[in-house]
Amino acid sequence: MLLLLLSLFLIVGINGSVLDNRVDDLWSDECSLPPGLRKEILSYQPVVEKIIRKVVGGDFKGETWQSLGKFVDKFGPRMAGSQSLEDAIDYMVGELANAGLHAYTEEANVTNWKRGYESATMLSPRKADLPILGLGSSVGTMRGGIMGEVVAVESFDELDALPDEAVKGKIVVYAPPWVSYGNTVQYRSHGATRAAKKGASAALVRSVTPFSLSTLHTGYQDYEDGVRKIPVASVTVEDAMRLLRMYRRNETIRIHLEMNDVDKGVAKSRNTIGELQGRKENSSVVVVSGHLDSWDVGVGAMDDGGGAFIAWHAVKFLKALGLQPRRTIRAILWTGEEQGYWGARSYQANHSQTEKDEFNFFIESDIGTFTPTGMDFSGTKEAECIFREILQLLAPLNATQFASPVDGGPDISVWTDRGFPGASLLNKNEKYFWFHHSNADTMLVEDPDALDKCTAIFAAMSYVIADLSIEIPKNIKF
Amino acid sequence: MLLLLLSLFLIVGINGSVLDNRVDDLWSDECSLPPGLRKEILSYQPVVEKIIRKVVGGDFKGETWQSLGKFVDKFGPRMAGSQSLEDAIDYMVGELANAGLHAYTEEANVTNWKRGYESATMLSPRKADLPILGLGSSVGTMRGGIMGEVVAVESFDELDALPDEAVKGKIVVYAPPWVSYGNTVQYRSHGATRAAKKGASAALVRSVTPFSLSTLHTGYQDYEDGVRKIPVASVTVEDAMRLLRMYRRNETIRIHLEMNDVDKGVAKSRNTIGELQGRKENSSVVVVSGHLDSWDVGVGAMDDGGGAFIAWHAVKFLKALGLQPRRTIRAILWTGEEQGYWGARSYQANHSQTEKDEFNFFIESDIGTFTPTGMDFSGTKEAECIFREILQLLAPLNATQFASPVDGGPDISVWTDRGFPGASLLNKNEKYFWFHHSNADTMLVEDPDALDKCTAIFAAMSYVIADLSIEIPKNIKF
Repeated sequence: MLLLLLSLFLIVGINGSVLDNRVDDLWSDECSLPPGLRKEILSYQPVVEKIIRKVVGGDFKGETWQSLGKFVDKFGPRMAGSQSLEDAIDYMVGELANAGLHAYTEEANVTNWKRGYESATMLSPRKADLPILGLGSSVGTMRGGIMGEVVAVESFDELDALPDEAVKGKIVVYAPPWVSYGNTVQYRSHGATRAAKKGASAALVRSVTPFSLSTLHTGYQDYEDGVRKIPVASVTVEDAMRLLRMYRRNETIRIHLEMNDVDKGVAKSRNTIGELQGRKENSSVVVVSGHLDSWDVGVGAMDDGGGAFIAWHAVKFLKALGLQPRRTIRAILWTGEEQGYWGARSYQANHSQTEKDEFNFFIESDIGTFTPTGMDFSGTKEAECIFREILQLLAPLNATQFASPVDGGPDISVWTDRGFPGASLLNKNEKYFWFHHSNADTMLVEDPDALDKCTAIFAAMSYVIADLSIEIPKNIKF
Repeated sequence: MLLLLLSLFLIVGINGSVLDNRVDDLWSDECSLPPGLRKEILSYQPVVEKIIRKVVGGDFKGETWQSLGKFVDKFGPRMAGSQSLEDAIDYMVGELANAGLHAYTEEANVTNWKRGYESATMLSPRKADLPILGLGSSVGTMRGGIMGEVVAVESFDELDALPDEAVKGKIVVYAPPWVSYGNTVQYRSHGATRAAKKGASAALVRSVTPFSLSTLHTGYQDYEDGVRKIPVASVTVEDAMRLLRMYRRNETIRIHLEMNDVDKGVAKSRNTIGELQGRKENSSVVVVSGHLDSWDVGVGAMDDGGGAFIAWHAVKFLKALGLQPRRTIRAILWTGEEQGYWGARSYQANHSQTEKDEFNFFIESDIGTFTPTGMDFSGTKEAECIFREILQLLAPLNATQFASPVDGGPDISVWTDRGFPGASLLNKNEKYFWFHHSNADTMLVEDPDALDKCTAIFAAMSYVIADLSIEIPKNIKF
């Protein structure tokens, strides 16, 4: 009997549906939607199934992947401040217009940090190149570089326990274990400042990934006001662990570090927009979005080419299917996300006078477009009940999982943090951080069938929300 | 009932022991060992268990990993012809002597191919760096490099189907799918020659790995006599697939390729030897081995630092335990394996007059030192029956899996291919080729507990075989 229960548990664990249904039963007891609204939502099942059929198995099958492949092969990486990003934006405006959408851009400020020549060499106890990748916003070293002895630690606590004179003028190497992104990324975000407070001359941080094939991962880092800015770069997990081993053997490790990175202030970029006009004049807007910019390594096929492309293909395919919802669906391809969602913040500032009435719902994908499992949701309890009911329409894709956001989609969090309702794609992204912000972020990460399913979800969810007789409730805090 | 059977199957599948025992029952029916020999082999169970206890959980726990870590951190990669390999050999002679073994070297010829500056840049349709890693024995390009248009293919068949004029002067990019190492490595081994026969100016080959994080994998390649030698390098799986996509979209791709690699003929190196003398004067020898050289990327912790270190630690620990078998156990750390087992071939040539009587058995590890599962075996049926019986002594390590070699250990195959009995370590090496011949071959691949188990197996197996009252039968073909 125990064995039988174990087997049942395994089966449920594998396809998830039994478990989902049980959870669904629990929430539906808590939600008391007006029967009319429940019936209305249920009436969308046929159109949702049509969308899924066309996108996953019909005329549009494979198109999202093909289109994304052509795009990243053409433009490569698209860092804020680069010509490549602006060229990609010009191209996308054309693509959105070709799809019959109302296509335009809105200006946004973005940061303009430039990676220069970066090099690190271990000089003693033996000579070896140490591949590095500067972290976004890092200052450079002096010209010709700096020489420093290594202090290697596993944690901030270990660093703080050292006397200042043991750290002064040294290069701090952080070799923390992987715990989770949210935990381990603290060393990337704050490692330079914490080391500078102890008098260090530079910091090298273990790449933030659970698995490495000698892979460098960049990402944004934050200097604290009033603390000296020191150069900071990522090293591979392999090198961080090696330096820690050697340091703990009391070997004296000397590194030459040169970084010519420079912050050039603010540049102009654009958010790229493609609209499917609603039937209703001056309707509120359902936003469906991802960011077009990427880091300057890899080609940003995953982060966030996939998210941006399922967003705009959702709207493209609705248009092609002749589906015009009550409200306008606005695909927004954000700019300058990677170094602090500059595009979304500019967009919010430009729309601050109108946003309360302008926006009905925000949808985003920025944590992978692997096989989708459902969506996470931010908003009031009442809105949640409506959203959960709509989410059930995705049963044909086995993607009805509901969650509350843990990290939150950074771009739409500009609104959801203030009480606007919004949702992000959930997907089987267990390996997301293997590729994140590295040269491994390429088309090989993206699967055509998974992308089709993601696009179908964005099309179906945005259509139903945009067509519903009622607005999704908000509770806006200003 | 089906569910119950399924559960049982899962349990068997997970720890493997039920299945192993069933297979064992089958072979023991076929083998009719003399009862006295069976009894003798069984009498080694207590000493095998003592060895396992000491190595896996006792005084020596973790030592193999610590010692390997210190070694690779000190010397880094150790390519044939490099000073680093020769320095590592000098160090190892000291280590073997410090362990109380009879330590010495024997001279061997090795190839002396030198990697020079290597660079590839896609110039059109857009400019992008293409990281490359020249394949061992590749010629360089002319000074300043060559320019070529890309012809991308998935297979030799696809290449051969093209008219010669479509390939002449072009750079052939091979983007085959991963099938297996043995299958996919054909493009690395023979890609240059096959392309040259069609008039190509150079070849770029997808790195031979089932999984990539934009990882370059080098390896040896073979020019065919009488065919023009053209430069050949590996590219990442990601870039191979990208170039294939672009080529199939009829985009004209132009690449600038420069490689200053050069073959400097033959250099001198040494096989490194540490012996535990047998009790019997002029006894035959049990060889336990791995290779000390590596490629020039990564640090060769897996290929084959792990193999070499479990081999010599096995002998070191037997010595430390005061176990002196009847026959001599000879740890051999081969040199120059990577580019055609030069060390083993030199060793064979030097011992060709005596080898028939000199060697009793050859043990090797060169396909990973992950958690061990058993050993594969080459030899006569009679020898196999004896070996299978000895292998059962490893039941405490759950490592009694028996197999016939598929690829064969390259170094000991110099003897086993001619009828000497030999065995190689089987282990859970499903991810071996993720790291193989790349910068990802580091200490992160090696697990202290797995290494202890591997060392214990090499110690136990070499001890029992060396101490047995009879020689392992051979059937030598000359």
